[in-house]
Amino acid sequence: MSVDQRLAELSAALPGDVVVTDAERTDKYRWDRANDPRAGVPLAVVRAESTEHVQTAVRWAAKHGVAVVPRGAGTGLSGGASAIDGCLVISTERMRAVEIDPLTRIAYVEPGLLNAELKAEAARHGLWYPPDPSSYEICSIGGNIATNAGGLCCVKYGVTTDYVLGLTVVLADGTAVELGGPRLKDVAGLPLTKLFVGSEGTLGIVTRIVLRLVPAQRTPSTLVATFASLDDATAAVLAISSRMRPSMLEFMDRASINAVEDMTRMGLDRSAEALLVVQSDEPASYAAAEIAEVGALCDAHGATEWFSTDDPDEGEQFVVARRSAIPALELKGALLLEDVGVPLPRLGELVRGIEAISADHEVLVAVVAHAGDGNTHPLVVFDPADAAATARAQTAYDAIMRLAISLDGTITGEHGVGRMKQPWLRDYLGADVHALNRRIKDALDPQGILNPGAGI
Amino acid sequence: MSVDQRLAELSAALPGDVVVTDAERTDKYRWDRANDPRAGVPLAVVRAESTEHVQTAVRWAAKHGVAVVPRGAGTGLSGGASAIDGCLVISTERMRAVEIDPLTRIAYVEPGLLNAELKAEAARHGLWYPPDPSSYEICSIGGNIATNAGGLCCVKYGVTTDYVLGLTVVLADGTAVELGGPRLKDVAGLPLTKLFVGSEGTLGIVTRIVLRLVPAQRTPSTLVATFASLDDATAAVLAISSRMRPSMLEFMDRASINAVEDMTRMGLDRSAEALLVVQSDEPASYAAAEIAEVGALCDAHGATEWFSTDDPDEGEQFVVARRSAIPALELKGALLLEDVGVPLPRLGELVRGIEAISADHEVLVAVVAHAGDGNTHPLVVFDPADAAATARAQTAYDAIMRLAISLDGTITGEHGVGRMKQPWLRDYLGADVHALNRRIKDALDPQGILNPGAGI
Repeated sequence: MSVDQRLAELSAALPGDVVVTDAERTDKYRWDRANDPRAGVPLAVVRAESTEHVQTAVRWAAKHGVAVVPRGAGTGLSGGASAIDGCLVISTERMRAVEIDPLTRIAYVEPGLLNAELKAEAARHGLWYPPDPSSYEICSIGGNIATNAGGLCCVKYGVTTDYVLGLTVVLADGTAVELGGPRLKDVAGLPLTKLFVGSEGTLGIVTRIVLRLVPAQRTPSTLVATFASLDDATAAVLAISSRMRPSMLEFMDRASINAVEDMTRMGLDRSAEALLVVQSDEPASYAAAEIAEVGALCDAHGATEWFSTDDPDEGEQFVVARRSAIPALELKGALLLEDVGVPLPRLGELVRGIEAISADHEVLVAVVAHAGDGNTHPLVVFDPADAAATARAQTAYDAIMRLAISLDGTITGEHGVGRMKQPWLRDYLGADVHALNRRIKDALDPQGILNPGAGI
Repeated sequence: MSVDQRLAELSAALPGDVVVTDAERTDKYRWDRANDPRAGVPLAVVRAESTEHVQTAVRWAAKHGVAVVPRGAGTGLSGGASAIDGCLVISTERMRAVEIDPLTRIAYVEPGLLNAELKAEAARHGLWYPPDPSSYEICSIGGNIATNAGGLCCVKYGVTTDYVLGLTVVLADGTAVELGGPRLKDVAGLPLTKLFVGSEGTLGIVTRIVLRLVPAQRTPSTLVATFASLDDATAAVLAISSRMRPSMLEFMDRASINAVEDMTRMGLDRSAEALLVVQSDEPASYAAAEIAEVGALCDAHGATEWFSTDDPDEGEQFVVARRSAIPALELKGALLLEDVGVPLPRLGELVRGIEAISADHEVLVAVVAHAGDGNTHPLVVFDPADAAATARAQTAYDAIMRLAISLDGTITGEHGVGRMKQPWLRDYLGADVHALNRRIKDALDPQGILNPGAGI
């Protein structure tokens, strides 16, 4: 059967404009936000509208041995949704239904729904969906499930998997299974719902999600502190996080402070080596006490100054500044986005080590971090037109992962392995754990058609 | 090779008194707390002292095709640790090390450590390990991991899996792997740590655990309410749980109230159809407001009376009463312990349905419940010397699981499937999800030696 005949078979099996094959329209499905230069050209894109569409597409791919790349909003930072040559991209962008049961605080969601859309819908019922990747306004819940996405409030409220009660998943042979459901506790059988959260589309494609919501967050109080010394700042992080549970504990280094200041002109201290943004969402009088204690710990660890506010809009400005780091640095060049994490006591060594890697490789590396989780985002900035600089950036990107592994850290805390980090996965996991991953992958996808080259 | 030769080989491979083979001493390893009358006779018991001992024992079992039954403290309620004829029991009762890093709030634990011992050790550092099965004083962390154990505070603080950062696991071929570790976020590779929590010893044997702790719980305030009508009580549960997040929301029906009163003579209202125990651990003034709101909701839903206290000892008496239900009912006969859960809005239907099953089968079924989670423990009480009564009890036990399934509920919320509930698992999961469970089991344990007949 020719390629054209196969595509005709796919188009015939699905309604009107679900299948897209012309290059002009499939082009935007080649890349996610990692902008992987090695991204391939898909054979076709299925813009599924239902579980049944996904099943039909996967069955077709299984029959013809075509690789499937599942795709949410395409905001992934590790290349997990970048296309490979001749693949079928299955996009869930059109599957955006959301239904909330306020009585049980449960949301029933389709994977294309944006994180921000779910937050807004929950807020209408006085409820909250905590996981908040910096990209929450543009990333989808399906992508969040695929990567087990984290965010800023995770230091207190946990990550995506902590909110997932159930999933509908299309397996590699097109079978759809329902795992878990609207039950708060269920231990019957293996915990398969948990296995799929963070599996990066390598075991199945999620088409429906049952999520636990919580009561609306209290209005947080915010403290911003600047430090002349990086070491003082990382010491302050450890002191704060060992004494209390702030609802946010974020870090920016000098390069990211300056990049954000270049873009926003909001008056950040350009000379500071580090800036911390800390929030407390405890009840008002307790938040005031918590913020005062954070301030005292900043003083004790040599902060040059700190400022606190219980005005939510004023506080939000600093959070926006922190969230703006990636777009601000994208104005300066192409980025290789790191996502390494370490046990909290090693945070200082990691950040100092990244500084040394930046100097050694003569490449700008700006660091922002979910500091309270030990999860950092070193952003390697380079000019893609300069081959030597690009090569140095890639070497620095590698070196940062090796540094993290040497500090008992991980190569990815929340972005996922994708295609960008897969070459380092085996070194990180070790041969035995890597083999265990492969045994599960092979058991669930014996043809190897689901997102090959990504994740595991 | 004869059985004696095989056992000699096992004994030679392990130190002195690690291997136990004489029937008098192995007898107590036949049953867990489910007291399954079908429990078999083990060939030997290995009382492992290290990961290496477990590896040696599993390699021996794999070589000779001997079934392995992993065992913690033997307090399981679904028969997951009851022996099968000719098996090797691997007990972790001697592996009880615990080490706490207060700076990062992380505990490094061996599986034989009791839940209460971990709580006590954490408390010495001002920290708390929340999961609290009613058996917390006698159950082990390893068993809690095997079943993904819940408890009373889980309605606010989640279940065991929410606290597990890393595991050392001995696989079916004797390989030991380290999954996860002391990193708060890590998405590199499949979420295998999560896969093993709740796998009931069917995929591997856990020998070391890295757990997340949280700051000590604030002293809770307690409210106890009695209801003349069961329906009023379940309506109150739904009203309370949809409006706030109490740190405990427990239920007892008339039969369990009376059994506890028979044992304790603490003055519970024997005429009540239901009793609720509710706690709030918010900061003091907020807890007072929350408890007042609970009281108002109890009034609105026809409570005959309620009483509240912020004295922790006084409050604890009622929690102890609730926890005493199983021992109190054990004084009245043998028990078949149910663990069915439903979506919260179906709780009333479930409890009413159980009442009908009790009447139809002429067998006492007392119900206690983690009501805020929709997780109930119907306790079927019978005289094991009366064959007809025993048969009726078994039929009622079956009927309760079928009722739960019909209400979109689960056959087990926190006790695990074990050997007692395995016959119902396929019906509950459905053929496709059951097959998916088996594919993972077969990939990780192709010989089928790990806890056969239990779990999946």
